[in-house]
Amino acid sequence: MNVLIVHAHPEPQSFTAALRDQAVETLQAQGHQVQVSDLYAMNWNPVASAEDFSTRENPEYLVYALEQRLGVKSQSLAPDIRQELDKLLWADLLILNFPIYWFSTPAILKGWIDRVLVSGVCYGGKRFYDQGGLRNKKALVTVTLGGREHMFGEGAIHGPLEDMLRPLLRGTLAYVGMEVLEPFVAWHVPYISSEAREQFLQGYRERLEHLQSDKPLLFPRLEQFDEALYPL
Amino acid sequence: MNVLIVHAHPEPQSFTAALRDQAVETLQAQGHQVQVSDLYAMNWNPVASAEDFSTRENPEYLVYALEQRLGVKSQSLAPDIRQELDKLLWADLLILNFPIYWFSTPAILKGWIDRVLVSGVCYGGKRFYDQGGLRNKKALVTVTLGGREHMFGEGAIHGPLEDMLRPLLRGTLAYVGMEVLEPFVAWHVPYISSEAREQFLQGYRERLEHLQSDKPLLFPRLEQFDEALYPL
Repeated sequence: MNVLIVHAHPEPQSFTAALRDQAVETLQAQGHQVQVSDLYAMNWNPVASAEDFSTRENPEYLVYALEQRLGVKSQSLAPDIRQELDKLLWADLLILNFPIYWFSTPAILKGWIDRVLVSGVCYGGKRFYDQGGLRNKKALVTVTLGGREHMFGEGAIHGPLEDMLRPLLRGTLAYVGMEVLEPFVAWHVPYISSEAREQFLQGYRERLEHLQSDKPLLFPRLEQFDEALYPL
Repeated sequence: MNVLIVHAHPEPQSFTAALRDQAVETLQAQGHQVQVSDLYAMNWNPVASAEDFSTRENPEYLVYALEQRLGVKSQSLAPDIRQELDKLLWADLLILNFPIYWFSTPAILKGWIDRVLVSGVCYGGKRFYDQGGLRNKKALVTVTLGGREHMFGEGAIHGPLEDMLRPLLRGTLAYVGMEVLEPFVAWHVPYISSEAREQFLQGYRERLEHLQSDKPLLFPRLEQFDEALYPL
C-alpha cells in the first residue's frame, strides 16, 4: 500500500507526533510506502482564495469549486495544492493525524481539505459517496483529545464522538468515495501517564498491523436515491 | 444589542456578502450596534501556533489551551487575537456568516474559532455548555450552500444539516455557553435566479427583525451530569 499521513500539530514533540511516528514505523515495517505531510512544518497555507489559481476562468467573480475544476484541466492550480493532490492520488490509504480542536480538525488541516480535495477530481456532479472520485482508497482518522472516554457515547455529555466528527467522516472522506475506517482515538492525552501513552501507541500499532481486516463505516449509496437525489 | 458579524468568503461580491450587508442594514435600522470582522479582507491568520503568545509559560513544549489561559492573564496574546476577543466579549449576538465548505466552516473561520475562543475566558474547567464563559450571548449561524433543501433532513442523502453542523452548533457555540439559534440557510445559491436570491435576503431581514422571539436550540446542561460528568 501507498500511505499518506497528513499530520497537523503545532508542537513537534507532541503525543500526536508520536502517533505519526508510530504509524510510519509500523507501516514501513510491513513493506508499505509512506509519505508524511507535516502541515505545520510545511507552513501550509490553509486559506482557499483566488490566489490558488494562476489563471482564472472568471477573473471577475470567484466560484472556488468551478475554478478548481478548470484549474485541474488547465494546470493552473497553485503548486502547493498540486503537490498535495498528487500525494493523495498516489495513496491507497490516507491517515489524518491531529488533535481535536473544537470537536473537529485544526484550521490548518481544514484548509488542506478545502484546497486539496479539488472538484472535478475528488468529486463533482453525481460523483460522490460511493461514486466519489477517491473510491478504492481507505481513510483513517487518528485523533488525540483532552476529554475522557465516558464523556462520549449515547447519553454522554458530548454524545458519540463519531457524531461530532460527522462532517469529516461522512461529509468529507465518505463524500469523496473513500472507505472510512473507525477512528483511532487517544483519550485524555494531556493528563495521562507515560505508561498510558505507551499503551495507546501499542494499541495503535496493533490496529495498523490488522487494518486490512477492518470493516469500513457505513454511509449512503447513490443507488438508494433517484436522479434528483430524493430517497427511493 | 451589540452585534458582531464574522464574515468569511473569498469573493467580495458573493451572495454571502449580500447577506452580511443585509444583516448590517437591518440590525442598524433597529438601533443595534454592529461590528463586522471580514476575515478575508483582514487577511486573518487562521493557524494556531506558538507565535500567538509573546511570552510563554512553557517555551519548551506548547500546550495551546494552557498558554491561552495564561496569555489572557499576562496579556501576552497576539494583538489580532486580543482584538477579536474584545469584539466577541462586547457582543450580545454573534453572527457567523459563511459558505459551507465540506459541511463546515471555511478554514479561515475555523481558525478564528481556534484562536479567539480562548480557554480561561470562553470556557475552562467546568465552565462549558450552560455554564460556559459566553452565556447570556446569542449565536446565529448564517450559511449559503450549493446543495438543495431536499438533500438534507431525516432520510435525505446528507441527513439533517444541523447534524452536519453539530461540532459548530453544539461543540463550539453551545459549548461556550451561547444561546444558539436555528441556522439561517440559503440553499442552492450558485444555481438560483436573482429573484430567488432576493427572496432569501427578504426572508433573512424578516428573521433578523424578529430574532428576539426565536427559541434557542436545546443542548445538554451540566446539572444533568455528576461531578465526573457521568449522566445522572
